[in-house]
Amino acid sequence: MKILVAAGPTREWIDPVRFLSNASSGRMGFACAREARRRGHRVVLVAGPTSEPPPPGTVRVETTRQMLSALRRRFGWCDALIMTAAPADFAPAARARAKIKKTGRPAALRLVPTPDILAALARRKGRRLIVGFALESHALVRRARAKMAAKRMDLVAANAPQAAGARCATVTLLTPDGGRETLRGATKERIARRILDWIGARK
Amino acid sequence: MKILVAAGPTREWIDPVRFLSNASSGRMGFACAREARRRGHRVVLVAGPTSEPPPPGTVRVETTRQMLSALRRRFGWCDALIMTAAPADFAPAARARAKIKKTGRPAALRLVPTPDILAALARRKGRRLIVGFALESHALVRRARAKMAAKRMDLVAANAPQAAGARCATVTLLTPDGGRETLRGATKERIARRILDWIGARK
Repeated sequence: MKILVAAGPTREWIDPVRFLSNASSGRMGFACAREARRRGHRVVLVAGPTSEPPPPGTVRVETTRQMLSALRRRFGWCDALIMTAAPADFAPAARARAKIKKTGRPAALRLVPTPDILAALARRKGRRLIVGFALESHALVRRARAKMAAKRMDLVAANAPQAAGARCATVTLLTPDGGRETLRGATKERIARRILDWIGARK
Repeated sequence: MKILVAAGPTREWIDPVRFLSNASSGRMGFACAREARRRGHRVVLVAGPTSEPPPPGTVRVETTRQMLSALRRRFGWCDALIMTAAPADFAPAARARAKIKKTGRPAALRLVPTPDILAALARRKGRRLIVGFALESHALVRRARAKMAAKRMDLVAANAPQAAGARCATVTLLTPDGGRETLRGATKERIARRILDWIGARK
């Protein structure tokens, strides 16, 4: 099988020095890519600026727009997409060309939404499997189910913000037919194995 | 000699998932701490969430306020401070308790300045040496000299935004008496040696 994996955060620059981002380490995606390769699948891994070094051959991107375009280019090729990435949802309306000086006065940063990667890819889903993640601080399962439906996912792993950057996480795997399975305090390797088991059983 | 080193970026949280930060890797500070230890100095290293793993014994902080308080607590102890850290200069006026939903509409993020760490420490400088860094996209040397004067630094290493997160950098070392020395495409280890040479000659 041909599996496309997206990992890590993206960065949206405010000026040449500062950016908006999040604590995604890339570990979940690296674990999925490794496990998929171990099982003999062909894997392409696209990663943002992760704190962990990515495996050799990884396609590196920085912004959400770059990640969308890298995934779009490879989506037609794949049989399954595992979207562990946490692209920045908002970007500054403009990137200042010079470093913004600290004035001592409050400032306002105008933010605009970035492209919704999963929504964009889901539009030409075809027979591909889409596995996504939902990171929610509140109403986790309800919101993850809504996201799964809106973005035509076949499996969603719902977890809390503490999971970002951590070695272990508690995730709840949800499927459109009402399936629900919780892995408590699981290593990202164990979560990856469970996701690959599920993909293997579906195809 | 007792040397306090600060390294890495800080993070200022927007909500439980997103933050403002910068691309500082911590490498410059780790190189200074290592080199200082190699020369027999006693070293305390305080680091933000760096992409490189910090040496054992490092005091970890996350926000600019936490970095200020960790440095304040140890500033009285030291003979020299090497401030390679790039604390976030701005923080969201408030941190949202729940993950902010992506609405598709532009939003505004109100930013307030964070405490100025070097300015706060410089107030009780005494006979301590202060080595700082200036990261500027424009008017580099002029701004670095102004920063040196305002923050009572004894040595400032001026560099461009490309230096953040990179393995090599071109830095210009400036002293209040008009001294100026440029290291071109230098590794961070080489810059660290030069800074430690300078500290050794001054004390």
